[in-house]
Amino acid sequence: MINRLAVIGVGLIGGSLALSLKSKEAVNEVVGYSRSDEARQEALSLGIIDKAADSIAEAVVDADVVFVAVPMGAMASVFAEMSEHIRPEAIITDGGSAKAQVVSSAREALGDKFKQFVPGHPIAGTEKSGPAAAFATLYENHRIVLTPVSETDSAATAKIKMMWQLTGAEVFEMDVEHHDTVLAATSHLPHVLAFNLVGMLAQRDDCDEVLRYAAGGFRDFSRIASSDAVMWRDICLANKQAILDLLDEFHQGINKIEQAIKEDDGEYLVEVFERAKKARDSRFADPDLIDNSEV
Amino acid sequence: MINRLAVIGVGLIGGSLALSLKSKEAVNEVVGYSRSDEARQEALSLGIIDKAADSIAEAVVDADVVFVAVPMGAMASVFAEMSEHIRPEAIITDGGSAKAQVVSSAREALGDKFKQFVPGHPIAGTEKSGPAAAFATLYENHRIVLTPVSETDSAATAKIKMMWQLTGAEVFEMDVEHHDTVLAATSHLPHVLAFNLVGMLAQRDDCDEVLRYAAGGFRDFSRIASSDAVMWRDICLANKQAILDLLDEFHQGINKIEQAIKEDDGEYLVEVFERAKKARDSRFADPDLIDNSEV
Ligand SMILES: NC(=O)c1ccc[n+]([C@@H]2O[C@H](COP(=O)([O-])OP(=O)(O)OC[C@H]3O[C@@H](n4cnc5c(N)ncnc54)[C@H](OP(=O)(O)O)[C@@H]3O)[C@@H](O)[C@H]2O)c1
Ligand SMILES: NC(=O)c1ccc[n+]([C@@H]2O[C@H](COP(=O)([O-])OP(=O)(O)OC[C@H]3O[C@@H](n4cnc5c(N)ncnc54)[C@H](OP(=O)(O)O)[C@@H]3O)[C@@H](O)[C@H]2O)c1
Repeated sequence: MINRLAVIGVGLIGGSLALSLKSKEAVNEVVGYSRSDEARQEALSLGIIDKAADSIAEAVVDADVVFVAVPMGAMASVFAEMSEHIRPEAIITDGGSAKAQVVSSAREALGDKFKQFVPGHPIAGTEKSGPAAAFATLYENHRIVLTPVSETDSAATAKIKMMWQLTGAEVFEMDVEHHDTVLAATSHLPHVLAFNLVGMLAQRDDCDEVLRYAAGGFRDFSRIASSDAVMWRDICLANKQAILDLLDEFHQGINKIEQAIKEDDGEYLVEVFERAKKARDSRFADPDLIDNSEV
Repeated sequence: MINRLAVIGVGLIGGSLALSLKSKEAVNEVVGYSRSDEARQEALSLGIIDKAADSIAEAVVDADVVFVAVPMGAMASVFAEMSEHIRPEAIITDGGSAKAQVVSSAREALGDKFKQFVPGHPIAGTEKSGPAAAFATLYENHRIVLTPVSETDSAATAKIKMMWQLTGAEVFEMDVEHHDTVLAATSHLPHVLAFNLVGMLAQRDDCDEVLRYAAGGFRDFSRIASSDAVMWRDICLANKQAILDLLDEFHQGINKIEQAIKEDDGEYLVEVFERAKKARDSRFADPDLIDNSEV
């Protein structure tokens, strides 16, 4: 049971945690802070938070648990602002999509209190944002990854694990670097590829016509290109190296496919395509396989 | 009304046309030929065809309309085999996914009868194949692209257009080259990208673990990597130039994004991502936008 939860950044991710813990009666009071007064008032009137704070300092001063769910680009300044005001026994955690950068800015800003910081990432979300997008069941049956480091107090990790389990999520632990590579592979890289393809088609004079003939396959492939541009800028910049490394590998793979197409090397194409099909089919079982057509 | 329809390649695409026209009572008799005796017998016992022919010659000899729906790699030899046996007034059409190669092999093989050939491509499909995958409503509310060339008899085009309209599809006409570019952009290129990404992840030692953290965004992005490897080999080789040109452009776009990530040029990233989001949101309206999340 958390007595006082402070949520910094009461949007989709922060607001949903607050709503979920409230619905489970796992928290006594939620204090919220967002940059804009509008977002604070909205969160208050939607019942996501019980009290809107006028500053980060005010939000965290009496909190037992502080959840930071601001855009990645704002994490460092938020940690710096709260550092002096947090109670020594309070636990701090976050929901940022890449972990190395968050960990290093928390280490720098939080000083002694860094051992109380449990880095986390809920693998859940929708394309919407802001307080109105939050809902209590967002984390149910989703995965939460915690990436504690050597300094992290294990009791703090255990407490944050329990908090997330109360939302109905499954909690896993991972190394920071491993998390950032895994997420770069399955989330950040696909986003970059989809943004790039659709961004490229959007510049064609015949874009409207081209997209008119885009059917189900393209719709699904490009769905992630409808995500928020600023959030994805932040993630790309925060998880630079892992994304750049995988882009390199991706280029190499594409170069080999290009070569095979040029040289009519159908055998190589079938080898790659079969390998991909097998891996995907084994991960995503039948119900997802409807309409995996050309179109 | 077609008196006798010959379907060469009674799989998903050919079988579905036969079933649809039968259900509309738009055809008197369907004769089918597939390479394997098994496929022929299956098509017969499923009521897709009324008569199984033992050769292409036998299938086409009395036909009014011949629909060729074999894999792209088999088109040339099928045209060559039927050429001498087709009635002079019969109309020939096909369902191949790229048109330039089909048109040139038909031109070469069909001689005088080439003017009776109407190249076509139904923008419809599923990931399944073979006679058992065929169903009568596959083409309902889908688009069919016809790509007649200068030699094509306009009465033949009109007749094939009517035939497809009877299946409930919308029929469009396009230049061969334009078709191949448009489809390369919205279908062939995305398939290559998805196959390459999943094929690359499949080679990692930690592939199983990586895919375990892949959620909805990845599932949708990679759905087309579950498509048939041989069909996609054939399409890549048949639509070489358009695919290679677009891959070049894709590389250039990715290079700029890489540069921006390296140089912390967030402005450029937001520009590309916003442009993509806008184009996609304008093509695919609200219902598709559920869960366009990071995950
Ligand atoms: N969306 C997803 O699918 C997803 C999934 C997992 C993790 N995440 C991560 O979760 C975090 C939050 O994402 P979200 O989707 O919840 O975004 P969101 O809905 O836009 O919420 C972000 C909140 O932070 C506030 N904010 C922005 N800048 C701030 C600052 N400098 N100081 C204080 N508050 C600030 C915003 O309010 P104002 O703009 O009104 O100030 C808003 O209330 C990000 O780090 C993201 O990478 C997102
Ligand atoms: N699937 C899609 O989403 C889709 C969409 C639009 C267009 N297309 C195009 O439609 C065509 C057919 O695709 P499909 O999905 O219908 O494939 P399919 O279900 O595998 O059907 C192909 C049929 O052709 C037969 N066949 C193979 N080689 C042959 C040969 N040399 N001579 C005669 N018959 C042969 C096969 O039977 P046996 O193997 O038993 O001989 C099978 O009955 C392809 O050109 C494809 O590019 C496909």
